[in-house]
Formats: sequence, C-alpha cells, structure tokens
Amino acid sequence: MKISRSIPFTDTYISQTISDKYGEDSRLIYNLEDQGGEACSLRYDLTVPFARWLAMRSDVQHIKRYQIAKVYRRDQPAVSRGRLREFYQCDFDIAGIYDPMIPDAEILRIIAEVFEAFDMGITIKMNHRNILDGLFAVAGVPDDKIRPISSAVDKLDKMSWDEVKKEMVEKGLSEEAAEHVGLYVQRSGTMREMLSSLEADANLIMNQNVKEGVADLKLLATYIEAMGVGSKVSFDLSLARGLDYYTGLIYEIVPDRIDGQSTQVGSIAAGGPYDNLVGMYGRRPVPCVGISFGIDRIFTLLAERRKNKKASELGREADVYVMAFGGKDFEGLLVERMEVARQLWDAGIRAEFTAKVRPKPQQQFSASEGAPVAVILGQEELDAGQVRVKQLHVGDRNSAQKDKGQLVARQDVVDAVRALLALSVEGS
Amino acid sequence: MKISRSIPFTDTYISQTISDKYGEDSRLIYNLEDQGGEACSLRYDLTVPFARWLAMRSDVQHIKRYQIAKVYRRDQPAVSRGRLREFYQCDFDIAGIYDPMIPDAEILRIIAEVFEAFDMGITIKMNHRNILDGLFAVAGVPDDKIRPISSAVDKLDKMSWDEVKKEMVEKGLSEEAAEHVGLYVQRSGTMREMLSSLEADANLIMNQNVKEGVADLKLLATYIEAMGVGSKVSFDLSLARGLDYYTGLIYEIVPDRIDGQSTQVGSIAAGGPYDNLVGMYGRRPVPCVGISFGIDRIFTLLAERRKNKKASELGREADVYVMAFGGKDFEGLLVERMEVARQLWDAGIRAEFTAKVRPKPQQQFSASEGAPVAVILGQEELDAGQVRVKQLHVGDRNSAQKDKGQLVARQDVVDAVRALLALSVEGS
Repeated sequence: MKISRSIPFTDTYISQTISDKYGEDSRLIYNLEDQGGEACSLRYDLTVPFARWLAMRSDVQHIKRYQIAKVYRRDQPAVSRGRLREFYQCDFDIAGIYDPMIPDAEILRIIAEVFEAFDMGITIKMNHRNILDGLFAVAGVPDDKIRPISSAVDKLDKMSWDEVKKEMVEKGLSEEAAEHVGLYVQRSGTMREMLSSLEADANLIMNQNVKEGVADLKLLATYIEAMGVGSKVSFDLSLARGLDYYTGLIYEIVPDRIDGQSTQVGSIAAGGPYDNLVGMYGRRPVPCVGISFGIDRIFTLLAERRKNKKASELGREADVYVMAFGGKDFEGLLVERMEVARQLWDAGIRAEFTAKVRPKPQQQFSASEGAPVAVILGQEELDAGQVRVKQLHVGDRNSAQKDKGQLVARQDVVDAVRALLALSVEGS
Repeated sequence: MKISRSIPFTDTYISQTISDKYGEDSRLIYNLEDQGGEACSLRYDLTVPFARWLAMRSDVQHIKRYQIAKVYRRDQPAVSRGRLREFYQCDFDIAGIYDPMIPDAEILRIIAEVFEAFDMGITIKMNHRNILDGLFAVAGVPDDKIRPISSAVDKLDKMSWDEVKKEMVEKGLSEEAAEHVGLYVQRSGTMREMLSSLEADANLIMNQNVKEGVADLKLLATYIEAMGVGSKVSFDLSLARGLDYYTGLIYEIVPDRIDGQSTQVGSIAAGGPYDNLVGMYGRRPVPCVGISFGIDRIFTLLAERRKNKKASELGREADVYVMAFGGKDFEGLLVERMEVARQLWDAGIRAEFTAKVRPKPQQQFSASEGAPVAVILGQEELDAGQVRVKQLHVGDRNSAQKDKGQLVARQDVVDAVRALLALSVEGS
C-alpha cells in the first residue's frame, strides 16, 4: 500500500479554528495561556488537524497516510478503563476521490491486519448513519430528537434495553416510538444476515435513507469478502458514536473477551468516512475515510497479556555479557572488556559489561542474567591472545557452572559468539 | 546494551515544579490556560521530566533509557536554521552509580553509532566545566562574572575573537583578563594533544578545578579509545553551553561540512552528566549522564541529502501493481483485483490496485510507477484459472511494453511474484 510518511503536524492550534468542530465536546479542549496574542489549544484528535492540513495543501489530490501522536482531553480520567487526559492515537486515513466503498474496504483490511499482527481477537462493530436516521424516521422519532435519541441508543453496549428506553422516554420520545426503535436497534449479526433482514422489512427499505445505506453496505460486503475480512464484522444497529463529522459508515473495534472475561477498556479503535470536514476549512471538498487506533488502550491489553509470560519469552536485552575474573591482584581488565564489547558492537551484536573498574564475579554473573552467551577475560588468556566464550544458563545450573567454555583467539571472538548464539536459538 | 523502552512521560507538568530548573530560559516555557486550578506547562526538554520521574521512583537504582518526544519553546523561530517552537528530541540517558566516566564513554559510543547509522560525518566537541571554571580563575575572572563570561566565550563558534572580547569587556572584565582568557579558549585539538598541553601549563594545572577536570578527561580518553570513538572528539576550550544543570563534562555534536559548505543548523545533539538534578526533586541523589538528539535538525540535513537522490534510490512504496484489462464490455474485475491483492498481502507483499470499478489502462500504468512487478488480470485468463505476471519498467520502454509476461495459475501468483521481485533486486 502506498503510505505517506507521518506528516509533522503541530500539536498546537489556533483555538477558534478547531473549537467549533467538536460541538459539545469542545469543553474538553486544553487551551494555552495567552502569552502575547497567541490563542492556541492542544490537539484534541488527529482527524481535524489532518483535514485542516489537506485544506491548505491544494496540490494534494490523493493521499494515504499514518500518524502516531498524542492528543489531549480535559476529561475525568479513569486509568483502569484506559481513559486518560493525554494519550497516543495512531490514525490511518485515505483522502481523495475514489469509487464508492473501495477506500473504506481498504481501511477495514488494515484494521484486521493490525490486530492480526498483535495476535489480538477483535470484532469490527459497524453501522451506517443513513440507516440509523432512516429507522428513527420510520419508528416515528421527530427530526429534532434524532441526535439525543441516537446518543441514548449508543449506550446499549453498557446499559440494558430498559434503561436505554427510560432515557429515551425522559428525552421526550413517546413510549410507542421508543418500543419501535427498540425492535430495530437490538439487532446485530453478520453483514449478509442483517442486509437480508433489512431488505425483507418492507417498511424500512422504502425509506430513502435506509435504501442508500443498504446499497453502500452491500457493495462494501462484497469488497471486504474479497479482501478476506468479512468474518470480522458485526453489523450492529445500535452503534451511533458521538462525533458529528462522520458521514455514512461508522465502525468501532472491540477486543474479544480474554479467558471469558470482558475487558475494561471498551473500544480500542474507531473511524469512518468524513467527507465534509476538509470543505469546512477551504473551498475544495475532499472526501476522506480513516481509522484512529487508541494506542494506550491497546497497550493496556498487551501489557495484561505480557504479565502472564515468562521473562525468557519476552526477548533479551543483551546477546553477550563480557566479564573478567582474576586472582587477588586482579585489576579488572576494564579497558580490555571495553575493547571486546567494541568488537561485538561493531559486528552488530548487543554486548554489555559491568561498569566497574574491578567488578566482583558475583556482580557480573547476576548482571549477565538473560544473556545467552558470555565472553570471559583473564590475564593469562589475554597474554596468549585468547579469550573464553561460553553459553550461559544452559541445562542445569551445576553443569553450566562446570562448563569452562572454549578458548578462541581474540580476533575470532565475533565468529565464536555468533556460533554460540545460533546454538542458543536452536536450544530454546 | 540494556535499554529500557520509552517511558510514557506526560507532556504536561505542574508549572512551578519545572520553571525554576531552567533559570533565565524559563521565559520560553509554554503555560496552559488555568481552566480550574491546574497550573500546567508544556515540556521544555526531556531531561528535567526524566529526573523528576527518577526522583519519584525510588525502586529504580540503575536505568538506561531512550525517549523520543516533542518539546516546546516559546522562542523566536528560524526555520532555515532548524529553530522551531515545537520540535522532537530523542534522549538517551544512563542513571545510577557507576565507576567514573564509564557511562559517559558509553554515551559517546552511542552518539558515534547513531551518526554512523545515518552515514553522517560529525565532530563531538567536548569540554569540562571544571577546566573552564579553573582557567577563568587563573585568568583573573572574578567569581561573579564566570557565568556571563562563559556565555560570551560560548559564542566563539559564531563570532570572531574580537567580537567576543568586546562583549567580555562590556560585561566588566578587564582588558588584561580578557586577553588571558583568549589565550586559552581559542585552543582546540584531539583529547591527547589538549591534555598534554594543559598538563604542560604549570599555572593552569596547579588549579584544583583544572586538575580534577584533566583527571576525568584522561580516564575518558582511555575508555573512548578502547570503544573506538576517540578520533571523533575535538576538545574545545570555548565550549560552555547554556543550561545550568550539567556537571563536569559537556559535549555538543556538530555536522561536518557537506561539499565544503558549512551547514546552517548548528549543533544537532548535546549532552553531559547532570548529577544533582534528581536530588533537587527528592531526598535521593542519582547521578545521570545523557544525550539529546535534535531530530528535526538531523532530518533537515537528511532531507537536504535526499533531494540529490533519484526516486529509484529512495525505496518503493509498492512491490506489485494488480491491473486488469479487457475489451469494450470490460467490467473492470475489481473484486478479482481485490482477491489477488489479498493473496499478496497475506504473503506480506506490498500490493496496490486502482480504486476504480472500471479503470482505464493508462490510469493503471501511470499509477504503477515505481512498482517493479505487475499482476495482470483478463477475463479469458481468469476463466482458465490463470493470471499474467510481468516485470515493469525493465530495459527500454518498448521492449518492456512488448513483454507479455508469463501466465501462471492463480494459486501460484505469490511464488511467481516473489521470483520476479528477486530478479528485479538483482537487476537494479
């Protein structure tokens, strides 16, 4: 895939330019102190700044790009659920005019690839704004209540249907309309199942909005099946999402339960097309579609999994530990340890030594923990132009201690170490 | 080397905690608007936050860590010289009690390795605060004038000696003392040359500060010679550097002239030991030594070099372009192009196709620019379970156009593409 390198967007923005793009959420924006006529804010997300950049760059017709950077929200933090005031997002976006649903399908493929690379089970929950608007209209939700009712429906993943219904009635919806909405939004399934069931519902499919949304999703289903990600998607009519700038398709990624336990973190990525945002900053509309990965939430899950792994599975920090031993007049051989480390570093081998002039044997042994190979220096061997190389922590402790390793010429230390490292990979 | 992963330091800090650590430079700190009792600032560098973190983590006795993150300075920007208000730094630090000069030598080795990896010629300019203080004392600079005179001397890389001398006299130094300072600070050379010349100067070497600095540097010279970086260092008695928190050794990395032209960007990395900073935040003093790389300045130099390279040397964005052609009833074969792309993606091969339902041949050819291999679909071949693979842009245009490629079974497309990619690597 053609992916442009991360663009060096700035973290700070003129306040007025961004504050009106987030609606009610703009109370969560961090503003900078006015230190001389510069009204600046900290970045709230990576989407709006990208749209603003695109609006300024009329030479950019098509671009695919990723960006990894921090965003800031003056929210009530809840660390255990991964809700922080300062956190990393990773965005991938495709901007430009393409045939319908092709870039959307590519985004979904990328989502699947990312979580496969993390070896993490996920579901892509998907919905379409037009279908949601259409079914609200069919159910008898007045136009001016669509946003509040939509935000109530979006809570179905955390609240029971009775609670959601109560909120809708409190927001002024009739009992009957609320029940009607409930018939629709409690449904989810594969794209093909849901599309068949929507098309079979004569009331719904007559609605122009629903018809458009269904046509989009039929095309998308064909494309994501071709790309091998169809099975990851759950079409969920309750998904609504807060941000106003999404047009049409919306999706949210939730991690699979781990060992039967649902995770605390909620969604770990979300996105959709935002076709009108670039046009709000300039004269030229550029359709866009993108995904934001919530890096800190993903890392929270990965860290949880890492806890259960042994240290030996986590990758080692050094390949070789360079040590020196000697009798009671032992001077430490620090410069010689440095010289051997340099030989190994020059060959791209990760080597460590104890940063002491005269280190004790036990100090060096415990610091070598995790390194599979040692180079051992002694005055006598050095005088003969030789060093000792040996495997560490192999088999049972006693036999490893007894293994004196092999003597090699100093200039051959890199080859000898490489041979032992290859052995230790096979053995592990 | 044992390197801890980047620690998720926050970008924002309680103002008072940091503002008094930068002395006069604190006017360059960006403060956040007070939005309810939270006095916060944007991070000015990565060193002070690291020291603050260390002070809080009494369980951390020794750590080596790197961190790549943005910092903010409310300075007058000068883009061409790489002076920005918001820029990336990459810091590497070693904290903990070690024998003298060993971690310092390791930092210098890392600096050399980093710029070797960039294939960038550099000089490490080095000095020692104690030697500087000592020679000022010997030259007759009063104690209360050491900081201002030191900051004048630091400008010798940008100003002539006459200008620097004028500034010193304006700052209240006697003509005679200024001349005396000038005798010392205009000297630079290899560490061994400079150490010999300092030791031969009976006046200087009697000074306790100078004596201590010379002892440090002799030890360091031995260590960096053992690590193979001695030849990169220029001992420069005019180097002073602004920040107050450095103790002892100071260094600054300057890029070599490119094609005989000096670069505009000044220093591209700088550092030194800061043994007292952690103790200022807590009860426990932890000696530290580190280096900050100015990533944006380094990228400015790399981008300059990149300009002179051909597109073919810069690495390609896709390995394979998947195309389809047909007669006048041609339907575009979009789903089939997606399916082939998916086969290639699943095999880790970077594949692209045109995001159009019915793309024109010319559209596909020009979009394939840069990809060395094409997979070409046609209805007839697909009906026979086959696709065509061929090398793109090989030899002269006409013969490449005439090359029809080879027909392979659809399930063998990955192997066939891999074979052609291997050929295109050999050919280039």
